Amino acid sequence: MSIYEDSLKFHNEIRGKIEIKSRTKVQNELDLSLAYTPGVAEPCREICKNKENAYIYTRKWNSVAIVSDGSAVLGLGNIGPEASLPVMEGKAVLFKEFGGVDAFPLVLNTNDVDEIVDTIVRVSPGFGGINLEDISAPRCFEIERKLKERLDIPVFHDDQHGTAIVTLAALINALKIVKKRQDEIRVVVNGPGAAGTAITKLLLSFGVKDIVVCNKKGIINKESNFENEAQQELAHITNPRGISGTLADAMVGADVFIGVSAPNVVTKEMVKTMNRDSIIFAMANPTPEIFPEEAKAGGARIVGTGRSDLPNQINNVLAFPGIFRGALDARAKEINEAMKLAAAFAIANSVPEKDLKEDYIIPRPFDYKVQRAVAEAVSRAAKE
Amino acid sequence: MSIYEDSLKFHNEIRGKIEIKSRTKVQNELDLSLAYTPGVAEPCREICKNKENAYIYTRKWNSVAIVSDGSAVLGLGNIGPEASLPVMEGKAVLFKEFGGVDAFPLVLNTNDVDEIVDTIVRVSPGFGGINLEDISAPRCFEIERKLKERLDIPVFHDDQHGTAIVTLAALINALKIVKKRQDEIRVVVNGPGAAGTAITKLLLSFGVKDIVVCNKKGIINKESNFENEAQQELAHITNPRGISGTLADAMVGADVFIGVSAPNVVTKEMVKTMNRDSIIFAMANPTPEIFPEEAKAGGARIVGTGRSDLPNQINNVLAFPGIFRGALDARAKEINEAMKLAAAFAIANSVPEKDLKEDYIIPRPFDYKVQRAVAEAVSRAAKE
Repeated sequence: MSIYEDSLKFHNEIRGKIEIKSRTKVQNELDLSLAYTPGVAEPCREICKNKENAYIYTRKWNSVAIVSDGSAVLGLGNIGPEASLPVMEGKAVLFKEFGGVDAFPLVLNTNDVDEIVDTIVRVSPGFGGINLEDISAPRCFEIERKLKERLDIPVFHDDQHGTAIVTLAALINALKIVKKRQDEIRVVVNGPGAAGTAITKLLLSFGVKDIVVCNKKGIINKESNFENEAQQELAHITNPRGISGTLADAMVGADVFIGVSAPNVVTKEMVKTMNRDSIIFAMANPTPEIFPEEAKAGGARIVGTGRSDLPNQINNVLAFPGIFRGALDARAKEINEAMKLAAAFAIANSVPEKDLKEDYIIPRPFDYKVQRAVAEAVSRAAKE
Repeated sequence: MSIYEDSLKFHNEIRGKIEIKSRTKVQNELDLSLAYTPGVAEPCREICKNKENAYIYTRKWNSVAIVSDGSAVLGLGNIGPEASLPVMEGKAVLFKEFGGVDAFPLVLNTNDVDEIVDTIVRVSPGFGGINLEDISAPRCFEIERKLKERLDIPVFHDDQHGTAIVTLAALINALKIVKKRQDEIRVVVNGPGAAGTAITKLLLSFGVKDIVVCNKKGIINKESNFENEAQQELAHITNPRGISGTLADAMVGADVFIGVSAPNVVTKEMVKTMNRDSIIFAMANPTPEIFPEEAKAGGARIVGTGRSDLPNQINNVLAFPGIFRGALDARAKEINEAMKLAAAFAIANSVPEKDLKEDYIIPRPFDYKVQRAVAEAVSRAAKE
């Protein structure tokens, strides 16, 4: 059987990958009077005096809503809220297993930006954080921005920032191997969606100076070729040499290619035109922009993908559980740029320099030490 | 220490009475590829073909949202969403422990009817049912009605229907003891809020003919004394003798008094004016409309309250877990009058006739057999 058939059978047997667990027993009158009426009136009164007490007397301190409208799920596109549930439940499993976070899926039957924002704001009192998931660009940018304005709990769009953080972690270690500095490299980002946009902005925060972003039609620049406001904004903060042309043109002389786009859009010939010791992160799933073997045949020194069956898997799982763990522990009001950079460095530093090599620039996702390191780094950065 | 101090300490130590439990482990690549990417794409695709498949491949089949705006919590009034959380978490514990239902609290920071309705509709794709909780009357009636129109999953306002079902169960058994028939008794319901309204309607469904409802100012009748549209509707389906006056006037000659109102509003003297073998359900919490000792001194034969430290506790816990268990098992699209009546009879019949006596008309809430009987009766009624 294929992994798809196996997974369908697994889902049919388990009928839900998460459930609610009661942390207390109610076996007699005393149990009931402590956990429920009449005793429960007292924590209610204490929280009524000061909302912050909800962090002390309820699960709010550890609760995250995983919110999706099902509009950009995996590579499947806009499949709707119900069909996105298996992914959201899977995400909740990863939150719990790797971060100890109680995350609950909320899938919404609307694609309207303001309706999504209003809904999340209205359900927010019970949550310590909001994880946006699989919401298509450019709506995801506006939703995140509006939520950040209206909420004082962390809001994090994992498809953007989780991907950006793990990509940066991989880049930090790759640059150590090829001995290049971030302020002297040329980077091409292909695919200006949720992930590509966040990667670009985080690389700028990291100190990369020369990033060229491409969409399906080619290089985005200030004068032309942006498809929406978000791409127009990107055009203004990238492409310092003001070049134009195709993706192939962008790659000439580049040190790094980062693809969050489509299968097979990069050829061996395009890699050959890049600078020496080139780095390729081809993260389209399941089929990358170029497979490692071909990229290496074109001269690439380091190749990463999104796939678990190839070396250097660049996988969000390395980031989001520890990031929320750290943010919740610090009771952070947001997840800011410093916290994201701290998370990327924590992931990168989890690979000891002596173990670093072309095919091992990033840890495997099942390393709990990495998650703890991320949580601690994020919590520390939040407090600073 | 008082129960309130004990409960505060308990809540401070436990920091959340529920948590998310992962039903699967992710310890290696294979686990991840089955529960998450890439395998998870397959159940997503199957649900995309047919939304109903969400009941097979996700937890939707067993998931209930406990929704409150915190506007009528216990006897505390409008304390807001955060302060209602301890009650909603307690409810989730009871749902799980007594019904095996995965219920998750969603507390909303709006009191607007349409905003509440829209929010619930938008988050509904992930849930198999909606339990409304502690939403003040008369808004709760409109919210429930609008949700029932817009959703095809069961919507149940426990403060209304849960209370009504358990009250009816107690009445069924009390009538057996005093040997009176429902179509020949006179009933007074004091307090036309959420509970009082639902009790009145369910008693009418049960076949009671003569119900007089009172608010703070006295008897509600067609001509006058209703405070809102909901009470006006009540006036038209009750009070067949068209009487007016005070609560004391209503009680003259009555067989049954049902209080869901305020402490100490009934006196021994008022009970003395009732019919022989009178039945008093004084359910104001924690201080009833009249204490059992005084009611009996006034001639009442059977007295029930909401308190766990007195005989005949009329407690919702007997109903809601089994009701949702039954509705979810039958994949019912609503919880209709027949299902509510079936639940009430199942609770009443849980006390064998040979054991029935004045101080034992209703089972204790910790009897799992009762919950199972309710679930089976509701599921059967749903299928019919």
